Amino acid sequence: MKIAIVGLGLIGASIARGLKGTAEITGIDCDATTIDKACRENVISQGSTRIPERLDCDMAVLAVPVGSITSIAEMVVPHMQEGAVLTDTGSTKAGIVRHIEAICPCFVGGHPIAGKENPGYDASQATLFQGAVSIITPTSGSKKDCIEKVEWLWKSLGSSITVMDPDRHDELMAIISHLPHLLSFVSMSIAKDIHIHRELLGAGFRDFTRIAASDPIMWRDIFTANKDRVLKLIDDYTHELTKMKDIIKGDRVAELEDMLRTYSSIRRNLYDNKG
Amino acid sequence: MKIAIVGLGLIGASIARGLKGTAEITGIDCDATTIDKACRENVISQGSTRIPERLDCDMAVLAVPVGSITSIAEMVVPHMQEGAVLTDTGSTKAGIVRHIEAICPCFVGGHPIAGKENPGYDASQATLFQGAVSIITPTSGSKKDCIEKVEWLWKSLGSSITVMDPDRHDELMAIISHLPHLLSFVSMSIAKDIHIHRELLGAGFRDFTRIAASDPIMWRDIFTANKDRVLKLIDDYTHELTKMKDIIKGDRVAELEDMLRTYSSIRRNLYDNKG
Repeated sequence: MKIAIVGLGLIGASIARGLKGTAEITGIDCDATTIDKACRENVISQGSTRIPERLDCDMAVLAVPVGSITSIAEMVVPHMQEGAVLTDTGSTKAGIVRHIEAICPCFVGGHPIAGKENPGYDASQATLFQGAVSIITPTSGSKKDCIEKVEWLWKSLGSSITVMDPDRHDELMAIISHLPHLLSFVSMSIAKDIHIHRELLGAGFRDFTRIAASDPIMWRDIFTANKDRVLKLIDDYTHELTKMKDIIKGDRVAELEDMLRTYSSIRRNLYDNKG
Repeated sequence: MKIAIVGLGLIGASIARGLKGTAEITGIDCDATTIDKACRENVISQGSTRIPERLDCDMAVLAVPVGSITSIAEMVVPHMQEGAVLTDTGSTKAGIVRHIEAICPCFVGGHPIAGKENPGYDASQATLFQGAVSIITPTSGSKKDCIEKVEWLWKSLGSSITVMDPDRHDELMAIISHLPHLLSFVSMSIAKDIHIHRELLGAGFRDFTRIAASDPIMWRDIFTANKDRVLKLIDDYTHELTKMKDIIKGDRVAELEDMLRTYSSIRRNLYDNKG
């Protein structure tokens, strides 16, 4: 299997490392230093900072920021061989799938649920997807053999597969990932001056705010791409927060306890209290 | 040193376990089963479900929920010997210190920055305070030898000490602990139906929501006791969240990136990017 990976950041380079010995990898990245390093470290067999006239591969993987996926797809598709499969690793799916399906009959969207706060080639690791779940989002127009090749990709990297409609994916990810990241980012607005008391930051603060250290560009793109669903959830959340505020303000202690008990139960049930 | 611990939950029983061999511990807890267990396990030397007529100790530690501390203090103080020190372990300090100082000249407030989501005697451990910071909140009226005895308590348990004004404590804890817990609790309101896709919950969701599993009674009391500061922070947070919402809604992509970059930097600087 010959695979081209466009974008050798955390995700792209981790795919390349994980497929070592299983596939022949061509790496494409706008940064020449990264290409050099990846060649030297044998993470890729050959590399280039531009898309070659004829992209000699069975599958191309777009591992670039969400905001660039469709434009990069437009650049890549004309250079692909007939029958070669195209996939991506973006954290949003509906808009991307709609756009790329219209220009490439062999596209199947993907999204590995794996990552780290630190982005970039140097953070990549062969085991990033082992034991993780990768979502793929075929539609009624997707070809069976294309779906199977994308499934093969993630299984080869040690992931299990969940198949999901692109819209359902974005709805679910807004809840599971996008809103939590947004809320954690915003919590830093009230934490500006606490560096003088760093010794007092407990495990709760550390965990709650960990995702606030995430990559600003990646999250700018995700919030923009999944805008409608994220805005709706901000409204829902603000509504609940205001309810909580009114209860505390009004000293409605029994109601407050009930509400906290409900929330605590939801969390405990999600992880069978082992989270 | 003879120490009486009122409340053998996670904190009280962990203090008792940690002081084994250093002090003689009397345990007082309304639950007879807990007292029996603590005696059998040699966590305490003697125990009772009621406050003895004459409380024979050099120091009494109130390790009960924030909402009960002042009323329990009123019950305990008349039974203490002259000169015996009184302290507590509550997560809020201003109201508690004001109240108890008025009835006991030997009171110094305390707050160990340690804990777990699971409350209760069975979760207690001797090492809970090792390497942790414990805040003590003496005031201008506190006696030197009382302060020193409370410092001794936490140092014996392996904690380092931070001395702080009670009001400053509550202001700082609202930022570091109370608001993050409140925001995490409320995030469960939008997560009600995601148990059907538990396999997709990544590390971000897990960490962000971990403190939502905390004890409802404990947090009911904390939000109530630190009401004014918590309400003020909810307003500040809602203001920032609305700003973020307007930026996303208006597709102001450059501003969005700037804002996320600022938040991400605050978090990275707090932990030197090692959090």
